[in-house]
Amino acid sequence: MSSTPHPLDPLTPEEITKAANVVRPLFENQKPNFRVITLREPPKDELVKYLEAEYRGDHAMPNLSRRARVEVLVKSTKGKNDLMELSVDLDKSVVVTQQHLEGKHSYIDSAYMKEVEEACLASPSVQAEIKTLDLAEDATVIVEPWAYATDGSNDMSRRISMCWFYLRLLSHPDANYYAYPLDICAEVSEDLEVTKVYRLPSSLSEQIHKDARTFDRQKMHATEASEYHPDLRPSPRTSTKSYQVVQPEGPSFHISGQKVNWEKWTFRVGFNYREGLTLHDIRYDGRSLFYRLSLAEMFVPYGDPRAPYPRKGAFDLGNDGAGINANNLQLGCDCLGMIKYFEGWHNTASGLPLKLPNVVCLHEQDDGILWKHTNFRTGHAVVTRSRILVLQTIITVSNYEYIFAFHFGQDASINYEVRATGILSTVPIALGEPKPPFGTIVAPGVLAPYHQHLFCLRIDPAIDGHKNSVVVEESHAMPMNDPDVHNPFGVGYETRTTYIEREGGFDLDLTKNRVFKIVNEKNVNGVTQTPVGFKLLPSYSQMLLAHPSSFHARRSEYGKHAVWVTKYREDEMFPSGRYTMQSMGGEGIASAIDKRAEDAKESNVRNEDVVVWHTFGSTHNPRIEDWPVMPCEKMVVGLKPLNFFDRNPGLDVAPSTQEVNKSVLYNGIASDDQGCCHVLRQ
Amino acid sequence: MSSTPHPLDPLTPEEITKAANVVRPLFENQKPNFRVITLREPPKDELVKYLEAEYRGDHAMPNLSRRARVEVLVKSTKGKNDLMELSVDLDKSVVVTQQHLEGKHSYIDSAYMKEVEEACLASPSVQAEIKTLDLAEDATVIVEPWAYATDGSNDMSRRISMCWFYLRLLSHPDANYYAYPLDICAEVSEDLEVTKVYRLPSSLSEQIHKDARTFDRQKMHATEASEYHPDLRPSPRTSTKSYQVVQPEGPSFHISGQKVNWEKWTFRVGFNYREGLTLHDIRYDGRSLFYRLSLAEMFVPYGDPRAPYPRKGAFDLGNDGAGINANNLQLGCDCLGMIKYFEGWHNTASGLPLKLPNVVCLHEQDDGILWKHTNFRTGHAVVTRSRILVLQTIITVSNYEYIFAFHFGQDASINYEVRATGILSTVPIALGEPKPPFGTIVAPGVLAPYHQHLFCLRIDPAIDGHKNSVVVEESHAMPMNDPDVHNPFGVGYETRTTYIEREGGFDLDLTKNRVFKIVNEKNVNGVTQTPVGFKLLPSYSQMLLAHPSSFHARRSEYGKHAVWVTKYREDEMFPSGRYTMQSMGGEGIASAIDKRAEDAKESNVRNEDVVVWHTFGSTHNPRIEDWPVMPCEKMVVGLKPLNFFDRNPGLDVAPSTQEVNKSVLYNGIASDDQGCCHVLRQ
Repeated sequence: MSSTPHPLDPLTPEEITKAANVVRPLFENQKPNFRVITLREPPKDELVKYLEAEYRGDHAMPNLSRRARVEVLVKSTKGKNDLMELSVDLDKSVVVTQQHLEGKHSYIDSAYMKEVEEACLASPSVQAEIKTLDLAEDATVIVEPWAYATDGSNDMSRRISMCWFYLRLLSHPDANYYAYPLDICAEVSEDLEVTKVYRLPSSLSEQIHKDARTFDRQKMHATEASEYHPDLRPSPRTSTKSYQVVQPEGPSFHISGQKVNWEKWTFRVGFNYREGLTLHDIRYDGRSLFYRLSLAEMFVPYGDPRAPYPRKGAFDLGNDGAGINANNLQLGCDCLGMIKYFEGWHNTASGLPLKLPNVVCLHEQDDGILWKHTNFRTGHAVVTRSRILVLQTIITVSNYEYIFAFHFGQDASINYEVRATGILSTVPIALGEPKPPFGTIVAPGVLAPYHQHLFCLRIDPAIDGHKNSVVVEESHAMPMNDPDVHNPFGVGYETRTTYIEREGGFDLDLTKNRVFKIVNEKNVNGVTQTPVGFKLLPSYSQMLLAHPSSFHARRSEYGKHAVWVTKYREDEMFPSGRYTMQSMGGEGIASAIDKRAEDAKESNVRNEDVVVWHTFGSTHNPRIEDWPVMPCEKMVVGLKPLNFFDRNPGLDVAPSTQEVNKSVLYNGIASDDQGCCHVLRQ
Repeated sequence: MSSTPHPLDPLTPEEITKAANVVRPLFENQKPNFRVITLREPPKDELVKYLEAEYRGDHAMPNLSRRARVEVLVKSTKGKNDLMELSVDLDKSVVVTQQHLEGKHSYIDSAYMKEVEEACLASPSVQAEIKTLDLAEDATVIVEPWAYATDGSNDMSRRISMCWFYLRLLSHPDANYYAYPLDICAEVSEDLEVTKVYRLPSSLSEQIHKDARTFDRQKMHATEASEYHPDLRPSPRTSTKSYQVVQPEGPSFHISGQKVNWEKWTFRVGFNYREGLTLHDIRYDGRSLFYRLSLAEMFVPYGDPRAPYPRKGAFDLGNDGAGINANNLQLGCDCLGMIKYFEGWHNTASGLPLKLPNVVCLHEQDDGILWKHTNFRTGHAVVTRSRILVLQTIITVSNYEYIFAFHFGQDASINYEVRATGILSTVPIALGEPKPPFGTIVAPGVLAPYHQHLFCLRIDPAIDGHKNSVVVEESHAMPMNDPDVHNPFGVGYETRTTYIEREGGFDLDLTKNRVFKIVNEKNVNGVTQTPVGFKLLPSYSQMLLAHPSSFHARRSEYGKHAVWVTKYREDEMFPSGRYTMQSMGGEGIASAIDKRAEDAKESNVRNEDVVVWHTFGSTHNPRIEDWPVMPCEKMVVGLKPLNFFDRNPGLDVAPSTQEVNKSVLYNGIASDDQGCCHVLRQ
């Protein structure tokens, strides 16, 4: 890395140390717990000027100050934990702003959660409750502490953790304890006191049957059905032969620091503790497309209506952090071919830099055919293969895994692919109970409650510049017997477009083929006579099911509509608000829009610096096939040029040839059938 | 191939010859034109018995007769062309049934179409009209004859061809003539007479402005913008480095004749002139899943309301044939890795066997991660990669290409992927005309009218047997303040299921997360307490836009609903009827269902041998980026087990390791930057 970081480069380890050193003296006797030391991205107006100068190749570049955003938890004089947010000018080594975030909570602190777990297990009342289960000697009770999803039952100004109990039946540390949910639950206070211990419901209502416990050690199912770790499984299938990707000329990408250059695309890779992977200043063939793309939030509300399960509702970005929970990706495991890894930097509680290795990987994939045509008159076929560039990050949030990947195409399209995998979050159910209407029994005694995964992709466009508009285009049949409409045979249909004038939330409508287009009205395509643009290919999804008056709905807000359009504002980055931990609602995108609705200037989104937010996800009513580990469920969102260029941007991709691709003709029986290879090499 | 074909094997060349030899003498003086000689699949009841005996490994197998379905066009005594359909018993060499298909037309005859083209160009009236265009000496007029989509304007009992005119501006035979649509149109009769020559509309209505012709040779755009063939393009980009797939142990599949065995899957590959690739007797780990999967129809109605464009509405299976138009796939061009090709056999007009080489290819692909979990307590990650088996066929229908592929997964899912590529069908538009509401101007003078691609995937399930039911499952929020419902926090939601009792057409509903499940009610999953099943993951699409009273709607029928459920009937294979050429409507799936609706026994689909038909596709309002050749537009339909197994069927796939995958760490600058390779081999 060069000595001067680019304004969009994440903080260097040295900068993290510096920021901590500037902040630490302010809280000398307050045991400062550094939760966040991250880049405060430069103000957009300044950064845009910088990026334009950089693109032009100016010698004199604007001087942008490097700033850190610091979150620190400090002990107040009353023994409470105060959450402080500071902005530090790293060039001048001074604190620029400092704010006490009264009533807000920082995201999940894994070291603290470990203490919660230990305090819970050490509690005599918990131990007494465990004792009633009459567990086998060698069984291990596992406590899984979760953030508390506000349900209106408790004071949320101080932190409460929900502790769920499981049994690890085998001594192997990777035995799947989610297969043995216990019917115990505990609540732990901010000060690590176990405030409540109780039993989980054993019937369809939230009633507890004292006699018919949901857990019965005599009737536990064999572990065989529920283990996923290879150490605990029979030998795997051997039928899958090896498959390797070879790139003899090296990769097609060029990487310099955080800057990526691939097949006419250029962009910068960002990374922070919360959003994880972010992408900046995305251009194709030099033309500006997107200022910033990021996953902005992800909410996983559970649909089991019985207390205390309404407290299961995870903001996996706001509460957990996609960056801090990003996997250390391994060569040969998570991708094939030639892989570039990006590291991330976070900080320890004491303010030291903490390396997060291999949190993002970048590689190319073959993606089948890009375009093909055979002239039936000559019989001549021209076919090009599609190469894509994949930027991938994988996060683990307790039981679940999410695989997030941006796919860049040679046809100037971007696809954002999400895969959900990992293990279902389970609760106990008594043997012999009928299947409840809000969950699936995946193993005897194991209920996987229905839940939703709602993602929000934040799209900050810069379609040939920063003043953009959003148009809704629909395809409508023309009326057939209207004297004013020429449609004598009834086959005609047309597109109708409506510009979105004011900030708001909007729904998809398949029946009208409703398409959301981001356009630059000032730049009209000379051939098509329409403004240049990109269209959103949404991931068609059911929106939030929780009742509008529920805390789930009030806290998440963005789950109500599939597409939100707002005017860009510094720090309006998160559609459920910046502080989601035990939030009370009213801090999300809908509330922000409502507040500005009266002011026409504030709410105008026509020819403005707009932001488009796409809500999508899955209503995940588990299958038994998702157990004990779930095959990936895939969702894809696309961004595709729409009369932006003057032709197919992938027209100049070279035709596909056997000389380059070196495929192999299968012409007989596989090698292991006869001990020799009947495959002809071409 | 063994001497005795399997009952599902396509006809061998010898069988085609034999069938022709049996039929030919019947029409000795009638110039028989053999349109079809194809396998008549055995009756389902007989074939099911055979397949079960085969699966059990019986020594004595049921004896099924081999039959051919033959379509022959013969000259009647009145000089007309009579379409005859015959069934031939190949074992006994006798005609079993014979039928004169009064008023029906066979599918498109490419040799005849060539004659239409020639007759059209030879016509003095056509030549006179061409002369008015004042074309350059070296320009070549190309006539593209199309089947006539019924519009109520002509007698459909005899064949009419629509001839569209284009200009090939360059001498290169692969120059893109669709870039220069001329404003001439001609109609050619069954007897090859040019019956009408006229000009195409030059305004938004169908009016012809005599003075303002849409075509003006003085103002033709340069070919540079519209050529796709590499001979006519500047050198392609060189940034795309080679990417190869290597399978050192050979493929994971085993193939014996038409039977495929891969990763617990077994099935048979079929092929015929109309559907192209078909799949039969699909099992996973020995358990029956699907009796037959096939693309059943595809309709491409154009939305330009002006006469004569309502005559553009192509049934690409019924009129053209996915088999007969299947590309000869080339090693190293259409796929990577180790490829098995299947050939197809058709027949010549005189009844000789005609080989269609490489019409289907089969290969494996890496598909990213199958499942992953990291135990956050131990930090141990287990990740498996997903391998898929791809069966692909690509068809060219005049200007368009379609890539059809079945993807089999290790998690027992099947995805059917369709990619649309090729060249847009264009019509002329005067320079300077405003963009019409029913088309996109993709080059000066070139209008690409809006159109839809509506596919119908026919799913003949056999979920643990042939008696299946279809259930509609929806996810509904529970009411919040209903005293009878326990939902105190408003977060609860539940699934509600409704069995489909009667044949019918059904719609998707995202807002309810409506899911169509095919289940076997007799076989209840012991753990989940629900019938074993598979669910349809639909491709969310707008349905047919043409007015219900239009010929497009009356002829296609299946385009009205996304899901159709019928009881299995021999020969009910095509949702717009068997004979779609110049059809008059009323022969599709909706009409068939209506006819049976009164009869409860006939229309019952509960615990019956059901067939599910999925309509999907795209409302294709062209982008300029689709020009001059269109980057693939992708659509995917899925079939996924739903409480069919007792766990994740891909649980036994071996974890992914670098030892096997041999990925390469990118650790610096690509080779062409410095002339030496900075890549570290691991």
